[in-house]
Amino acid sequence: MNGSRIVGEVRVVGAGLLGASVGLGLRAKGVDVIVHDSSPANLNLAIDYGAGRLAKDTDNPTLIVVAVPPDVTAAVIAAELAAYPDALVTDVASVKVAPLAELREAGADTDRYIGSHPLAGRERGGAISARADLFIGRPWVITPHDSMPLGQVGVIEDLVLDLGAVPVTMSAEQHDSSVALVSHVPQVIASLLASRLNAAPESAMSLSGQGLRDTTRIASSDPELWVQILGANSRDVVQILRAYRDDLDGVINALERPSARGARRAVAEALSAGNTGVARIPGKHGQDRRFGQLVVMVDDKPGELARLLTEIGAAGVNMEDLRLEHSPGAQIGLAEISVLTEVEERLAAELEAGGWKIAGAWK
Amino acid sequence: MNGSRIVGEVRVVGAGLLGASVGLGLRAKGVDVIVHDSSPANLNLAIDYGAGRLAKDTDNPTLIVVAVPPDVTAAVIAAELAAYPDALVTDVASVKVAPLAELREAGADTDRYIGSHPLAGRERGGAISARADLFIGRPWVITPHDSMPLGQVGVIEDLVLDLGAVPVTMSAEQHDSSVALVSHVPQVIASLLASRLNAAPESAMSLSGQGLRDTTRIASSDPELWVQILGANSRDVVQILRAYRDDLDGVINALERPSARGARRAVAEALSAGNTGVARIPGKHGQDRRFGQLVVMVDDKPGELARLLTEIGAAGVNMEDLRLEHSPGAQIGLAEISVLTEVEERLAAELEAGGWKIAGAWK
Repeated sequence: MNGSRIVGEVRVVGAGLLGASVGLGLRAKGVDVIVHDSSPANLNLAIDYGAGRLAKDTDNPTLIVVAVPPDVTAAVIAAELAAYPDALVTDVASVKVAPLAELREAGADTDRYIGSHPLAGRERGGAISARADLFIGRPWVITPHDSMPLGQVGVIEDLVLDLGAVPVTMSAEQHDSSVALVSHVPQVIASLLASRLNAAPESAMSLSGQGLRDTTRIASSDPELWVQILGANSRDVVQILRAYRDDLDGVINALERPSARGARRAVAEALSAGNTGVARIPGKHGQDRRFGQLVVMVDDKPGELARLLTEIGAAGVNMEDLRLEHSPGAQIGLAEISVLTEVEERLAAELEAGGWKIAGAWK
Repeated sequence: MNGSRIVGEVRVVGAGLLGASVGLGLRAKGVDVIVHDSSPANLNLAIDYGAGRLAKDTDNPTLIVVAVPPDVTAAVIAAELAAYPDALVTDVASVKVAPLAELREAGADTDRYIGSHPLAGRERGGAISARADLFIGRPWVITPHDSMPLGQVGVIEDLVLDLGAVPVTMSAEQHDSSVALVSHVPQVIASLLASRLNAAPESAMSLSGQGLRDTTRIASSDPELWVQILGANSRDVVQILRAYRDDLDGVINALERPSARGARRAVAEALSAGNTGVARIPGKHGQDRRFGQLVVMVDDKPGELARLLTEIGAAGVNMEDLRLEHSPGAQIGLAEISVLTEVEERLAAELEAGGWKIAGAWK
């Protein structure tokens, strides 16, 4: 156990996935964590899990972390600011402009509030999924604002670093427009695509491949939470969705008369713009290196993939990414392994010498 | 080497990824494969790879497989029907209504033609990526039509089975509307989403997560090929895209005034419809069983994942799926392992006993 950067008590309000995970992570660093939740059942569960202790009259927290649904975030922040006049307050909601604006409207003491947002979580939430390591290596955005002394940002940075996350500082406006693009709009797009499948015949579904699975995976997210997120960031989300719709209209118009002059060019340009856009997404470790991919055939039986990875490890090669791909009806899987391009050829040769079938290799 | 079901010579026209892979797969079964390509360079490459031999005047193929771009598929089929009056001809294009209609218009001998379509391939194509096992376990749609004796379908089925694929029979119309939904529309949706990233600031891109990566992965596909596919299946694609746009308009309207009466319900219903839609996608092996997922922390160094999978194998558990997840800046990965629900608890207990950290488990 390493010591914490955070000094003093930390009060966590809201014992869901994020709140309970903050509690578990800080407790692992030896911090005295107080947990509170409006639901006694949730609270007891989180305390049983070791996320912290019950509040006492003598509590004097340095920092309060509000981890409640977006809809009630501002009200809870305001109540905590009033109840603990010496504490700095942050929150972990997925939107940052709306809570600050609401607090200002309500005349809350915003010079003790700094919003933040860990880019962490999963499709399924709840305290039952909480874990001390939820935030390790994830970006955690901190959004300072004018009405507070900048020095206090350091306290939030200590929290982020204690939890193993990577602090990223930007304005609330920058944050909201960024997550609209990389998180909120993709959610809408994927959900609408998946909803098209409701009317499909079974025979069509049987032709589903990895492309459909990938494009719709996040459509299994919790509607209740996402309604709140989308509602609170509607301005930025709508702006991007409108531009998306205009592009979509362009493709629809072109495909309505695919042999008309310019139609093919319009579709080709839309597809090419997708090529350049997707290339901008940072890969593993946020770096811009190029990786090669090896596709290796693996029998679908216990131990086969382990045997493959043992040989890769024995070759001294670190996989940058791994993906196992299956087809309906197949008793064979394809393991797609990303490795640094400089070791790719050597690894392919060693695996083939070991009897593995390399199904393909691309840069 | 097992013997082939196919009897006689097979001529493959077009030595790209699919054609060369058909050649390699049939040659592995001992079939005499003739390869042809309008590009001598492509042809020589495919022959060097072992996909078949050069054509001779004495060739008398039983079956001809046309594997050329969609735009020229019908013309090449017609030429092959004329050149080899005893052969049955199939093609592997991603659309099936258009080639048959074009052939009929041109007065071709369609009673010797049966279209087909293997649901196989990758974002990157070319003979250089060809492999004998490309089709193993994949669905391969066969589209019989009225103007031909049904008995000949058996020859195409032999081809499909020789290549290890799973024959699926449906009409050309059924095929085209099915792939419009599960393949062509997702391509458009993903490309348009990825193209939104072109204007994003670096700071926004640094917040990218697995959700964005998944929803946009196929946006790296080849625009030239996809323009042809979308153009040839424009009617079915446009129909679905229009319904998608209507749904999108509904969400945009709701988010333009998120606190208006009914707005939240509209957004919630769109998200819920996504939940039920994505649940219809068949999982591994095309079966409907429910799997549990274990998320295990894995240090990002050579051999760690292998060690994990070895222990899973030693526990006698077969992974149904595996996904490795990374975060920017993280030196730790999360391995998300799908296993049958009946072994999930036991495996979690055994792994934890072995010192692994289970980060979460959901049904």
